[in-house]
Amino acid sequence: MKRLQVKLKTGNYPIYVTQGIDRLDKALAGLGGPFFLITNPRVYRCGFGRLRPRLRNISVIQIPDGERFKNLQTVQTVYRRLVRYGADRHARLLLLGGGVVGDLGGYVAATYLRGVPFVQIPTTLVAQVDSSIGGKVGVDLSEGKNLVGAFYHPRFVYADVTFLETLPERQMRGGLAEVLKYGVIRQAGFFRWVIQKRSEIFACRSEVLQTVVATSAGIKAEVVSRDERESHLRMILNFGHTFGHALERMTRYRRYTHGEAVAIGMVIAARLSRKMGYCDKATEEEIREGVRIVGLPSDIPSLSPILWLRAIGVDKKRHGGKIRFVFVKKLGEVVVDEQSPERLVRLL
Amino acid sequence: MKRLQVKLKTGNYPIYVTQGIDRLDKALAGLGGPFFLITNPRVYRCGFGRLRPRLRNISVIQIPDGERFKNLQTVQTVYRRLVRYGADRHARLLLLGGGVVGDLGGYVAATYLRGVPFVQIPTTLVAQVDSSIGGKVGVDLSEGKNLVGAFYHPRFVYADVTFLETLPERQMRGGLAEVLKYGVIRQAGFFRWVIQKRSEIFACRSEVLQTVVATSAGIKAEVVSRDERESHLRMILNFGHTFGHALERMTRYRRYTHGEAVAIGMVIAARLSRKMGYCDKATEEEIREGVRIVGLPSDIPSLSPILWLRAIGVDKKRHGGKIRFVFVKKLGEVVVDEQSPERLVRLL
Repeated sequence: MKRLQVKLKTGNYPIYVTQGIDRLDKALAGLGGPFFLITNPRVYRCGFGRLRPRLRNISVIQIPDGERFKNLQTVQTVYRRLVRYGADRHARLLLLGGGVVGDLGGYVAATYLRGVPFVQIPTTLVAQVDSSIGGKVGVDLSEGKNLVGAFYHPRFVYADVTFLETLPERQMRGGLAEVLKYGVIRQAGFFRWVIQKRSEIFACRSEVLQTVVATSAGIKAEVVSRDERESHLRMILNFGHTFGHALERMTRYRRYTHGEAVAIGMVIAARLSRKMGYCDKATEEEIREGVRIVGLPSDIPSLSPILWLRAIGVDKKRHGGKIRFVFVKKLGEVVVDEQSPERLVRLL
Repeated sequence: MKRLQVKLKTGNYPIYVTQGIDRLDKALAGLGGPFFLITNPRVYRCGFGRLRPRLRNISVIQIPDGERFKNLQTVQTVYRRLVRYGADRHARLLLLGGGVVGDLGGYVAATYLRGVPFVQIPTTLVAQVDSSIGGKVGVDLSEGKNLVGAFYHPRFVYADVTFLETLPERQMRGGLAEVLKYGVIRQAGFFRWVIQKRSEIFACRSEVLQTVVATSAGIKAEVVSRDERESHLRMILNFGHTFGHALERMTRYRRYTHGEAVAIGMVIAARLSRKMGYCDKATEEEIREGVRIVGLPSDIPSLSPILWLRAIGVDKKRHGGKIRFVFVKKLGEVVVDEQSPERLVRLL
């Protein structure tokens, strides 16, 4: 088991990266209770069986699977269930699932009775390396994603890589986009190692997965510890996300998974970095080739500049303004600079 | 103008108590913007006229008046309006109104885009002396009051006593219950002074009102500064509220205003304090007489112990447990002790 630490002004908390849930009891001991498990039906079927013997008298609240249920309606349903179960200030929420369970459950934890403690037990690769860490919790409005939320941190994160064995390959690949991102922004050696070990990753070799998750989570934890509220440094985590999000929006979150969109977004960011003189051709190539070789899409779709700009969120009112964009200087090093989105899109 | 200070671990903020809104500009300068005003139609008609010349390009979001609209439905409507108005992270919310606007608007500020800065401009006595201070924001569920919320503090509170001139007398009286409470828990002299000055208070003599608001807000600010998250000391602010809330619940929030229920709750707390030997007969008498003389209800309704217990929230499951109750020792000094609710109700 690997133990990492997120360091915050308001107190630290650990991230456990391990195989199996044997250590969960110990981690939960001393946390008080009663416990309320928030999960979705798919995870409940696959993952809860292993958990149940360890948790007596746990109340289970299932929420429907899928990003389209990450909304205030579902939040309200969860509040009501908690009230009906008699959850008071002593309640502890265990969030077992992927990004939707973590984001929505974390938001419920942040706001039910003005905040109750919670624990993240992420079951997807993207949740283990990204969304369960950093305290960003929230839900979508029909007007846009993550428009409602809070900064609220778990008591600990428990990442059991065994859960990844039952993960559909496409979701695994999507998670790898974020993993590669950590390499690009912070650690060139890790980027190359992940690509080299890709077969073992997809074969779910536990030791390799633990290193993948622990290194990624460690980079995120370090960045978040140094900039909890995204004043500056934390923005480097958005590498590939400006165009990635735009692509998701344009295709209405249907064509690409988040990871696939981020993969293309990274290829775009690398190209723009080269074209604007931040990095050389070799760096751009290595990033695109890395994305391609793990099986993620690496072709930049040809779309009109107007569509790109609209999807980035540049409308008439904001025309002429600048956005902060993450450029790569070399593998393992990025820089945040203000740039006009019009110029970026023109260069594409 | 009086300037008080709330001192928090995460930073301090001021409470201005004044007559007129001349100083609001200066307080708002340097806060950035754009500004979004959240208010209700009644206050909008009466109060916004004075405010408008001072705020150019302000977007106004009106929410319906009344506690029954302090819910997630209204919150969602406000989020949507903010999105439509293009409110981004630079948005500043100004909350102009009573407790509902302050609680709900504060919750929106705490959660829109994971939190945007806001300012409280309370327009009722109870909002000026109580709900606008202390960072408790939130909304009701149909299952109970204030079940959803956060601790989130404004950049400043601007209490203009001129707003109280148009306040219905019953609401003014309700606010006085909280004012008297501050006297009971912290300052005997203030309790007696308020009773002595009651005619001038109801006549809205500005100097007197400013002292009423500033002293009350000052006591609350001091208590909150010493115990932000209600671990212990902050509980003394609940004097009179255990039975006050019970009474509101039993009568479905229809028969009594919050202040009236708290008034009776204080009379009950004083009686229980005397019967259990915390205070003498004279203290009990002085509290009941004070409540009566400002025109608040002071007769304890005779209700069955079972009804009281149910309304306090003691059901079969929790039977035998203890609750923390605020007893008065003498005027200006209270103590929090654990006591069985059954015993308290029996003594009534």
